[in-house]
Amino acid sequence: MDIVNDEYYMALALDMAERAQGQTHINPVVGCVVVKDGVLVGIGTHLERGTPHAEVHALNMAGDKAEGSTAYVTLEPCSHYGTTPPCSERLVKEGVRRVVVACEDPNSQVAGKGIAMLREHGIEVEVGLLKDRALKLNDKFFKYITTGLPYVTLKTASTLDGKVASRTGDSKWISNEAAREQVHTLRHRHQGIMVGVETVIKDDPHLTTRLSVGGLNPTRIVVDSKLRTPLDSNIVKDGLAQTVILTTAQIDVERVENLKKIGVTILICGEGPRVDLPLAMKKLGEMQIGSILLEGGGKLNGAMLEAKLIDRVILYLAPKIVGGMNSPSSFSFEGSEWMKDAVRLESLEVELLDDNVCISGIPVWS
Amino acid sequence: MDIVNDEYYMALALDMAERAQGQTHINPVVGCVVVKDGVLVGIGTHLERGTPHAEVHALNMAGDKAEGSTAYVTLEPCSHYGTTPPCSERLVKEGVRRVVVACEDPNSQVAGKGIAMLREHGIEVEVGLLKDRALKLNDKFFKYITTGLPYVTLKTASTLDGKVASRTGDSKWISNEAAREQVHTLRHRHQGIMVGVETVIKDDPHLTTRLSVGGLNPTRIVVDSKLRTPLDSNIVKDGLAQTVILTTAQIDVERVENLKKIGVTILICGEGPRVDLPLAMKKLGEMQIGSILLEGGGKLNGAMLEAKLIDRVILYLAPKIVGGMNSPSSFSFEGSEWMKDAVRLESLEVELLDDNVCISGIPVWS
Repeated sequence: MDIVNDEYYMALALDMAERAQGQTHINPVVGCVVVKDGVLVGIGTHLERGTPHAEVHALNMAGDKAEGSTAYVTLEPCSHYGTTPPCSERLVKEGVRRVVVACEDPNSQVAGKGIAMLREHGIEVEVGLLKDRALKLNDKFFKYITTGLPYVTLKTASTLDGKVASRTGDSKWISNEAAREQVHTLRHRHQGIMVGVETVIKDDPHLTTRLSVGGLNPTRIVVDSKLRTPLDSNIVKDGLAQTVILTTAQIDVERVENLKKIGVTILICGEGPRVDLPLAMKKLGEMQIGSILLEGGGKLNGAMLEAKLIDRVILYLAPKIVGGMNSPSSFSFEGSEWMKDAVRLESLEVELLDDNVCISGIPVWS
Repeated sequence: MDIVNDEYYMALALDMAERAQGQTHINPVVGCVVVKDGVLVGIGTHLERGTPHAEVHALNMAGDKAEGSTAYVTLEPCSHYGTTPPCSERLVKEGVRRVVVACEDPNSQVAGKGIAMLREHGIEVEVGLLKDRALKLNDKFFKYITTGLPYVTLKTASTLDGKVASRTGDSKWISNEAAREQVHTLRHRHQGIMVGVETVIKDDPHLTTRLSVGGLNPTRIVVDSKLRTPLDSNIVKDGLAQTVILTTAQIDVERVENLKKIGVTILICGEGPRVDLPLAMKKLGEMQIGSILLEGGGKLNGAMLEAKLIDRVILYLAPKIVGGMNSPSSFSFEGSEWMKDAVRLESLEVELLDDNVCISGIPVWS
């Protein structure tokens, strides 16, 4: 049974923010709950970049009851004029008495200034309630706002022996229905989805989000050093989302023009024979792609991991052992000489999804 | 990890409704989430009787985006003019395409009519998603709206041997901090709190809600056949909430007048020497008290249980064995001759609260 307290209301604010993941673009997700005299008087969540912040929705709902209330906000209220006026000012103006903040905003334009501003106006501010959950909810936003680089989630599904296909190349199917639905939820929550050109040539996927309730399609990003993406492939033709091809200065100009003509964006990433992945991430960040789901094959996974460009790894393991000396692995790269130097996953989470196991964590390089 | 689907959005609607428990008076708690093209566009929850329903808040937030959307509502939208206009009409007017309803409204003024009305206007309606949770959330509302009688939750805290005090009458303390916080949450969520006059004389309690974040005080209801409630007792004097005394036609008129003069409501429940409990429930229902938390001693608990007036039993068990042939029990009544005829708790729930055990269930009489 419940206990009505600060945590109980903050948990609702987080529940609301959680549902908006994916739709706020490079903005954070934020929820706000306003309580006056022990009674809920307003709720709000930020829905989309350029539209009202969570605090504004909740204070609008509260009306006169905002005066003397407590506001629970999952992220430090902003103090600067962005696409909307600062929420700290609004909280002050409405006469809110106390603000409980789950975590500070790492955005250098805010960074404690929102909290300081509230305190200057005599508002009691408490920071840190359910902080870990709040930080995780906006991990993509925090990475992007502080580095300008997209947050990259590597997702792969393999057998228990780490294979993504049998020795004949068969991969239908490895993961189960629940795992696939989670993957589409991940697509909805990332602004970009990245694959290697081999995947485009072999599977001709749409790389769209297929959820029972609909969802946002991420920008399709293809790592394609030799510009081999077929002009009649689905991601080029289907018009369901933007498509970006990462390639190098060595490719054929006419081919570039043909692709551009049908709406594909081409990013030249380096002069060498292969796409310069760190440079690619920088350029994608400049395009305001703040998060990428990497659904690569073993080679691209390995290259991104070696380049330390991965922020989170999510592995779906099917309860199968397929064997095969040359069956492709989920990570194909030279690897470290010693086990102690292997990439290690920290903050590990494990979940059983019917007969699939989902293991996820944050990669740490030695 | 999450899967974004109908259930995921309905769960948020239920989370929001849950937080408003206690503040909607005899109205149900209701949450609403509006989703368009796979994106959250509006959220709302009903806050207080006479103020906008959940659907209205959520549709206001959604604005133009309500058109073609899916609305998740925890309770069938109303179809009649009450204190606010019917929500079904509003859903139709906004062009909502699909409505997912957790459970039907048993209120005879609505009872399927809201759903029928939506369907007549070509809206796709699905009923029953997370129904059990939705039903439980409004168990008090359902009882009251269908019977006119308050929903009664019996709460008691005892030792493992069922004692509420030692043989010397000592009862400080049985339950722990977490259990006490849950009890104050229960007070916040019930419109009335009922005790016997012995408790008032012995402990002189305020019977108010003391939560870290504040809460609503229930109406204090005292079962007092001989009208022995002291004029200087806290519940008579403190002015923190309404006080109602249940008594009989046999009591002294002057005493009644004295109590009425200082704001106490007196309900005459029967002609006999003892309060007619079924009649008392009827009269409290007529006063629009839709839910009561019974914090009685063993005798009142026993009498209410024998009269089959209890809808839910919540027992807090402390890990102690106090003994004593005459130590008072949590339930003091003649009892059944055979074990098979004992009152049985169904839909049992068990929870460990630090070192206390909370056992709750719905009583069933043989």
